[in-house]
Amino acid sequence: MSGDDTAAPQHFELGPFAFDSGYTLPGARLAYRTFGELNAARDNAVLFPHMYSGNSSSLEALIGEGRALDPSRYFIILPDQFGNGLSSSPSNTPPPFDRGQFPVVSIADDVRAQHRLVTEHFGITALHAVVGWSMGGQQAYEWAVRHPEVVPRAAIFAATARTPAHNKLFIDMAGELLRSDPAFADGFYADAADVHVGLKRHAMAFTLTSTSTRFFRDEVWRAMGFASADDYGHGFTRGYYQALDPNNLLRQLAKWRAGDVGRNAGGDLAAALGRITGKVVAVAFSDDFFMPVADVAADVALIPGAELRVIDSPMGHFAMFGLMPTDAAAIDEVLAEVLKS
Amino acid sequence: MSGDDTAAPQHFELGPFAFDSGYTLPGARLAYRTFGELNAARDNAVLFPHMYSGNSSSLEALIGEGRALDPSRYFIILPDQFGNGLSSSPSNTPPPFDRGQFPVVSIADDVRAQHRLVTEHFGITALHAVVGWSMGGQQAYEWAVRHPEVVPRAAIFAATARTPAHNKLFIDMAGELLRSDPAFADGFYADAADVHVGLKRHAMAFTLTSTSTRFFRDEVWRAMGFASADDYGHGFTRGYYQALDPNNLLRQLAKWRAGDVGRNAGGDLAAALGRITGKVVAVAFSDDFFMPVADVAADVALIPGAELRVIDSPMGHFAMFGLMPTDAAAIDEVLAEVLKS
Repeated sequence: MSGDDTAAPQHFELGPFAFDSGYTLPGARLAYRTFGELNAARDNAVLFPHMYSGNSSSLEALIGEGRALDPSRYFIILPDQFGNGLSSSPSNTPPPFDRGQFPVVSIADDVRAQHRLVTEHFGITALHAVVGWSMGGQQAYEWAVRHPEVVPRAAIFAATARTPAHNKLFIDMAGELLRSDPAFADGFYADAADVHVGLKRHAMAFTLTSTSTRFFRDEVWRAMGFASADDYGHGFTRGYYQALDPNNLLRQLAKWRAGDVGRNAGGDLAAALGRITGKVVAVAFSDDFFMPVADVAADVALIPGAELRVIDSPMGHFAMFGLMPTDAAAIDEVLAEVLKS
Repeated sequence: MSGDDTAAPQHFELGPFAFDSGYTLPGARLAYRTFGELNAARDNAVLFPHMYSGNSSSLEALIGEGRALDPSRYFIILPDQFGNGLSSSPSNTPPPFDRGQFPVVSIADDVRAQHRLVTEHFGITALHAVVGWSMGGQQAYEWAVRHPEVVPRAAIFAATARTPAHNKLFIDMAGELLRSDPAFADGFYADAADVHVGLKRHAMAFTLTSTSTRFFRDEVWRAMGFASADDYGHGFTRGYYQALDPNNLLRQLAKWRAGDVGRNAGGDLAAALGRITGKVVAVAFSDDFFMPVADVAADVALIPGAELRVIDSPMGHFAMFGLMPTDAAAIDEVLAEVLKS
């Protein structure tokens, strides 16, 4: 991995930015980090937006010399999504858009901001590829539909072009759990850590559904150094989410829930996905409860020339974290195939 | 269906009853209802304990002339489990065991009480069969292990002999959601309806996981007369749970979580299941998130001569409600096979 990985993110100043929800954020900022160097032809850039609750450093483990995402070959741009605490977010924006009164943001807002970074700031006409997992995959779909000429290839992991109905039920529950803590105070808490009960409940929902029943049945957590299912839930899931800001998570949840590239074609999902001209490889994880194989496959059927890959793993939606070496290898293999195509 | 179905339950007075948790409940009562008549040989009784949140009338739709559970042929005993609001429960017991201070109860406690009803009250030496779904299936396993000579045949639907680890995570979340409502007040609310926010959150968890992603993907709710996934969640799941008592649900959740027939053999599940001498047919529902096929199959592998049946249904764990006519027919077919074997 490049030494860049410990650097603080850079910021692209968007100025006043009008969100799809009809609010203009003054001084909006897009945080991002990069690995590798943009070549003279400006044609080696890989855009890799991140998932729910993550940031531009969350998936660094996938980047490194000898890996598919090789910074000696590609200029890898990792944008931070709105609401993640590094780009403009409830937690870092002054009144009247601070905390509980930060506007609703959309996947399309993220992609519009990223498009300005790519074209205005880096002067890139076409990316080499877009890669994304989960909400990062939603952004990849939005890119491929909105800017087909800029996206010749895409590797999309465990994501759908329109959030499935059952996944919306999960999102609604996760949000309800964050807000269930009286300390949440309609988003006007003094310190995110005060909302620890809401964050705990939110983590319980993720522990239950983010891997799979197979993960717990086969006690896969043992190989990760945990002593019990509860130990995994506490040490990994709860530990991961406990440090985050509830308002930031809620804005991301709303964005995730509303994800639908069909909006680009008057609600017609098939028409929107039919606009994609690049090569799409969509990866489903075999035991994913959030984005089951059948949901990923339904999108693939609507995209010209797209291909479905299924990675068998007990890790469910969380396979992308690479906690199992076999997952990391299978993911790298797909990435290598797509990037070299 | 017999006209009995609208009758109030009867009560078997247990007297002072010592629970496994080490508390003695004075004047404990076991509620139950029956269909059909016990024959002179007292060998036509079918015991059919009910599931979480249910009672002795919940699954009446499975009983009727011409059905497998035919009251003109069998004497069908439907016991109410402790904590369901009809048998001794937090909601109907005087201090010092009322409301939030009702003792922890076990599946084995239910079975010990039912055994007294069957043997002392009805004078039955051997049942014709035990039938159960979910927590009713847990009780069926407990019966078959504890009293193999009394259970010549059992049809067990969507249940396991030991609650799976992933299912415990669900149970923990469901309990946390009930208690999350400040109106829960440590179980000392004046009226169950005051805890409507806790009951709503608890219902959200069930809406998400009690059917399947396939149920929502294929919009199976349409055939049931609902206009959307949210309409189903509100009209069916939330409507169903809203009328129940949170303390009663919490005692049932604790019982469900602790379910483990291995306790009859010093923790050795295989040894306990190896004691079963009756014919067990265990049914898994194809898309059941609570009791996946693999978990049901693992029990079957430990029971001499047991057989696994898988009923394909998008209804998941809730297939037993018979909301889809195909489910009801498939369930009746298995019941007929077992009862006539």
